[in-house]
Amino acid sequence: MSKAEKTKQFIVEKTAPIFNKKGFAGTSLSDMTEATGLTKGSIYGNFANKDEVALAVFDYNISRLNKSLDAKIADCTSSVDALIKMAGFYRTEIKNTITAGGSPMLNTAIEADDTHPALKERAFKSIKDWKKKIEAIIKKGIAKNEIKPTVNGSDFAVEFISIIEGGIMLAKTTGDISMLNTCIKRVEKIINNELKP
Amino acid sequence: MSKAEKTKQFIVEKTAPIFNKKGFAGTSLSDMTEATGLTKGSIYGNFANKDEVALAVFDYNISRLNKSLDAKIADCTSSVDALIKMAGFYRTEIKNTITAGGSPMLNTAIEADDTHPALKERAFKSIKDWKKKIEAIIKKGIAKNEIKPTVNGSDFAVEFISIIEGGIMLAKTTGDISMLNTCIKRVEKIINNELKP
Repeated sequence: MSKAEKTKQFIVEKTAPIFNKKGFAGTSLSDMTEATGLTKGSIYGNFANKDEVALAVFDYNISRLNKSLDAKIADCTSSVDALIKMAGFYRTEIKNTITAGGSPMLNTAIEADDTHPALKERAFKSIKDWKKKIEAIIKKGIAKNEIKPTVNGSDFAVEFISIIEGGIMLAKTTGDISMLNTCIKRVEKIINNELKP
Repeated sequence: MSKAEKTKQFIVEKTAPIFNKKGFAGTSLSDMTEATGLTKGSIYGNFANKDEVALAVFDYNISRLNKSLDAKIADCTSSVDALIKMAGFYRTEIKNTITAGGSPMLNTAIEADDTHPALKERAFKSIKDWKKKIEAIIKKGIAKNEIKPTVNGSDFAVEFISIIEGGIMLAKTTGDISMLNTCIKRVEKIINNELKP
């Protein structure tokens, strides 16, 4: 990494929790200088504008999340096991998620949908990627006779994502983490009762 | 209504979709003067600050939503029918919801959780009220032998709210309304398969 790349990375890492908590509109230049200890000139010497920082921050937050999730399902023994582990991921991750300001996908989707097309596009892509990941596991599971051939992977993925993201919102807003656990149990119930042959 | 009350109401109605789309942090004074055709002095002669407008707007958005929802379930024939109608509410409401900037409860919960305690409290209360409404229907249904006595009303309410709000987020971010319909079908399936005696 060049010195410039290291500085960019440093700015992204330091401002990531602020953008996730305060949102794009709510994060000010002084928030960014305070979090990094850098001057305005230094930040805007490395990024063209706040948009560029926000997009890099979103990519960083999603990439971190995907790495943790991929590590969690890396050693799974079957497609069903992979889905169960993916559903259970937030049972241990929720405390960190709340500290970091909530789900970056959800936060960005909600804030950017009517205001920031480039960020909305990133949120859209992160949803599509997650959906594709779930659909690929279903497809593989059907091919290996671990999942019923009649299961609609697209519908299951939509239900999975909505109930987990909805559960994160409920847990974070009410402070009651058991609400997310109720949602995770519902996903596990669908997997165990409806997906297995 | 006094003239002052009418002006306040006018400001709330005109700025409600803007706050819901742009969020609290993203809505500027010039957005408010533009939407109302009033001067800064007139707006801040009726409200102490932007916070006060935002709180009144949230109450207005939630009250409108609750009125529509209550009208939808007013003529239901049983507790199960009421829950089915509540789940199906967004099937017809989603287009208006998207035009108006999404679910006010979800938008406010996501934006305010780390930044605005008073708005977060309002979002929290609107979740609690919705949850209580579902729980009351379940309780009544159990008393009337329309719903199994073993059903946990609190868990069902949490699943209901998370899957519907998650579905609204998916439909709005991806532009694919069928994703919300998939979520509504899941709630209907839970009602039909798990709640009925």
